[in-house]
Amino acid sequence: MLIVGERINSSRSSINEAIEKKHFKFIQEEAIKQIKSGANMLDVNCGTNIRKETENMLWLIQTIQEVSDVPLVIDSPNPETISEALKICKRKAIINSITLEKKRYENILPLVKKYNTGVIALTITETGMPASATERFEIAKNIVNLVKEYNIKNSDLYIDPLVRPLSVEQAQALEFLKSIQLIKSLNVNVICGLSNISFGLPERGLINSTFLALAIYCGLDAAILDPTDKRMISTLRSVDVLLNKDEFCIKYIQAYKEGLI
Amino acid sequence: MLIVGERINSSRSSINEAIEKKHFKFIQEEAIKQIKSGANMLDVNCGTNIRKETENMLWLIQTIQEVSDVPLVIDSPNPETISEALKICKRKAIINSITLEKKRYENILPLVKKYNTGVIALTITETGMPASATERFEIAKNIVNLVKEYNIKNSDLYIDPLVRPLSVEQAQALEFLKSIQLIKSLNVNVICGLSNISFGLPERGLINSTFLALAIYCGLDAAILDPTDKRMISTLRSVDVLLNKDEFCIKYIQAYKEGLI
Repeated sequence: MLIVGERINSSRSSINEAIEKKHFKFIQEEAIKQIKSGANMLDVNCGTNIRKETENMLWLIQTIQEVSDVPLVIDSPNPETISEALKICKRKAIINSITLEKKRYENILPLVKKYNTGVIALTITETGMPASATERFEIAKNIVNLVKEYNIKNSDLYIDPLVRPLSVEQAQALEFLKSIQLIKSLNVNVICGLSNISFGLPERGLINSTFLALAIYCGLDAAILDPTDKRMISTLRSVDVLLNKDEFCIKYIQAYKEGLI
Repeated sequence: MLIVGERINSSRSSINEAIEKKHFKFIQEEAIKQIKSGANMLDVNCGTNIRKETENMLWLIQTIQEVSDVPLVIDSPNPETISEALKICKRKAIINSITLEKKRYENILPLVKKYNTGVIALTITETGMPASATERFEIAKNIVNLVKEYNIKNSDLYIDPLVRPLSVEQAQALEFLKSIQLIKSLNVNVICGLSNISFGLPERGLINSTFLALAIYCGLDAAILDPTDKRMISTLRSVDVLLNKDEFCIKYIQAYKEGLI
């Protein structure tokens, strides 16, 4: 299970302020905190200030890489920002994200190939966002065909079937879970953020963590989440034990000893 | 999802003492506490004092039925105790349990028919306890055939595929989950107790509740558990929301308002 830490995102006001004031220590602490909690990669997003996105992205990457060699997820729709970012990434990155909209992939997929990165592809087309599992699966098939044209390996493709809120349509969670199983049959990775599922409900962390357990059971390979959220990490570690992915429960017991679960 | 409260069991020293001293209030409080937490049925077990089992069982049932009309699960291997108990049960009960061992079913299945009860059948044969999902499934098929001979309806049959500890064999959880899906194809109910799974591991409640989420996703119909355990009830309520079994999230929100989750 790949855990992508989501905390370094300028939509969070504390991160936005740290970027504005170049508080490198704050960013570095956020990075270290997430890694210690179990993050295998860190998502980096500074999209709120579009004019300075490239400049801020480069500063964030440099700042993080001063204290850590964990690989990064470059979270931007802007090919220029992505391209400049990849030039300085020390380790193999993942680009977050493309869709099946031509304007969202045509300048990015060449970068995936050129810099040998992974890429997250959302199941969105020119005509919108799917609701059913089979619609998501159909789009995923088209994504697989598209990246093939660019000679990108399936193992570098992370498809995000997009979690939609239960409060909008309660059958959504089951459709999403079914879509994971379908998409896994294409021999690609499945990734997602989870927190949308609980939008509008009380005790969101409870719904999110239970949903995470079910999604991993259905085949989820990677999740973008806050690894400092004890409930999420507890669920992750216990699911891995139950699904026999944590031999001798080593990670689980280690997390217990470190007070992470 | 049928929740069977497990707390009225003489293997717990406080319950044993209450039975010895006929502390009816203590028993009644245990009953009410479990029902308020979400139990749909209450398991009643007084097997530790075999000589007085029938007498104690009758006292427990009368004591519980004075304050509640929730149906009961008569937890005993003793046909005499069961028979006497069923005579005074006000509502349709479930007998817990039979196995495929002749001495464990031949005097009990007639009572299931006579008193129109449900029955829990453990996947145990004369030769022992199964380890794999397919072994459990084969035994379940034989159980289905057996109860058919007694004209017992499938809807009254609750098969328990028996949870074995992860610490003994880590692949057990996956085998168990697979067995639920297989047994469900026989059109019977699947029930289990969960806590064995975490035997020997730290933070057992975490493993148990995550396991419960996965088991319900795989089709578990009923669980024997401690409904006053907030983590278990939280998982139950959130899974029901995710699997679209709690329309408009009514039970979830109610449990939230009552501080149960």
